[in-house]
Amino acid sequence: MQTLDVIKKRRSVRSFTDKAVEENKLEKLVEAAIWAPSGGNRQPWNVVIVQPKEDIEQIKAVSPGILGNPGALIVLCADRTKAGGNEEAAGSGIAIMDIAIAAQNICLEATELGLGSCMVASFNPKAVIELLDLPERFVPELVVSLGYPQNMPDAPPRRTVKETVIRWIKPG
Amino acid sequence: MQTLDVIKKRRSVRSFTDKAVEENKLEKLVEAAIWAPSGGNRQPWNVVIVQPKEDIEQIKAVSPGILGNPGALIVLCADRTKAGGNEEAAGSGIAIMDIAIAAQNICLEATELGLGSCMVASFNPKAVIELLDLPERFVPELVVSLGYPQNMPDAPPRRTVKETVIRWIKPG
Repeated sequence: MQTLDVIKKRRSVRSFTDKAVEENKLEKLVEAAIWAPSGGNRQPWNVVIVQPKEDIEQIKAVSPGILGNPGALIVLCADRTKAGGNEEAAGSGIAIMDIAIAAQNICLEATELGLGSCMVASFNPKAVIELLDLPERFVPELVVSLGYPQNMPDAPPRRTVKETVIRWIKPG
Repeated sequence: MQTLDVIKKRRSVRSFTDKAVEENKLEKLVEAAIWAPSGGNRQPWNVVIVQPKEDIEQIKAVSPGILGNPGALIVLCADRTKAGGNEEAAGSGIAIMDIAIAAQNICLEATELGLGSCMVASFNPKAVIELLDLPERFVPELVVSLGYPQNMPDAPPRRTVKETVIRWIKPG
C-alpha cells in the first residue's frame, strides 16, 4: 500500500475478534515505534506488551478508553531519565510528542499487517504503573490496543485541505 | 514501499537542494495530516504553508531548530477552540500529541514523495505568531521543514526491540 493509503485506511478500532495477535507482528510494531524520530534522538520511550486476557482485563478496568476485547496492548512509557535529560522532563511537551509519534508508527504498521488499533490516553496512570509493576523511572503515556478487527468503523468526518490551511504563502 | 520501509527510510533532513517543492505535493502532505487520529476526533490542528525564500528566512531567524534552506515550511498550529473544547486546553497533552501525530504523517508521506523533512519544536512561538499574523486562537506547536534532500544523513543509532521492551507478558 502507498503511504497515504495506509494513513487513510487506519481507523480507531474498538471491536476485535478472538484471533490472537502473532508475536512476530508485535515485534514488527515495536520496531516501527523504535524508528520514530525523537527530540535530540533521545528515544525516551519503552514499552510493555500485554497479551493474556486476564492481564488485559485488569488494565481495562482502570482504562475507560479501552473498548472491546483487544488481543494485545502495547503500553508506551516515557523514561524520565531520557526525556530531556532530567527527571522532571518526562512529562514535557517534547517527550509526549515523541511517544505519540511512536504510537502512530505502531498504528500505521498495524494497518499494514491487517491489525486494528486504537490509541488510548484515557487510563489511570497510577493504577497502570501498579498493575504492570513499572520501575520508578517509567511513566505510561499512551496505550495502543490491538487485535483483528471485528468490523472496521466508518471514517469520522474530516475537514478539507482548504479548511485546514489558515494561510498559504506562495512564491511570487 | 511497505509501511515499515517508509518508517525506516524517513530521516530528519537538514540540508536541501534549490529545487522547489511542488504545490500538489504540499497538498498531499496536508491531506496526510488531516487523516491523523485525534482525541475525540477534535482535529485541533490548522497549518500555514510558507514557500517564499524571504518568508522562510524570517521564520528561520527566530527558529534555532530550522537548519539548511528548506523549500517550504508547514507550521502546525493548535486551535485553542478545538483542543479539548476550551481555550486553556490548546497546550494540553492530548492536543500536543494530536499535532505530533499529524506531523509524523506529513514526514512519512514526504518520504514516500521523495522529499526530505524535519520536525522542529525549537522556535520562538510569539515571533512566529507575529510573522505569520496568526489569528489569536492559533498556537504554533511544530514546524515541519521540507525540501529535496541535498544528502540523506545516516540513521542515528536505535535501540533494539529487546532494549525497548520493559516487559512482555505472554499468554500461558
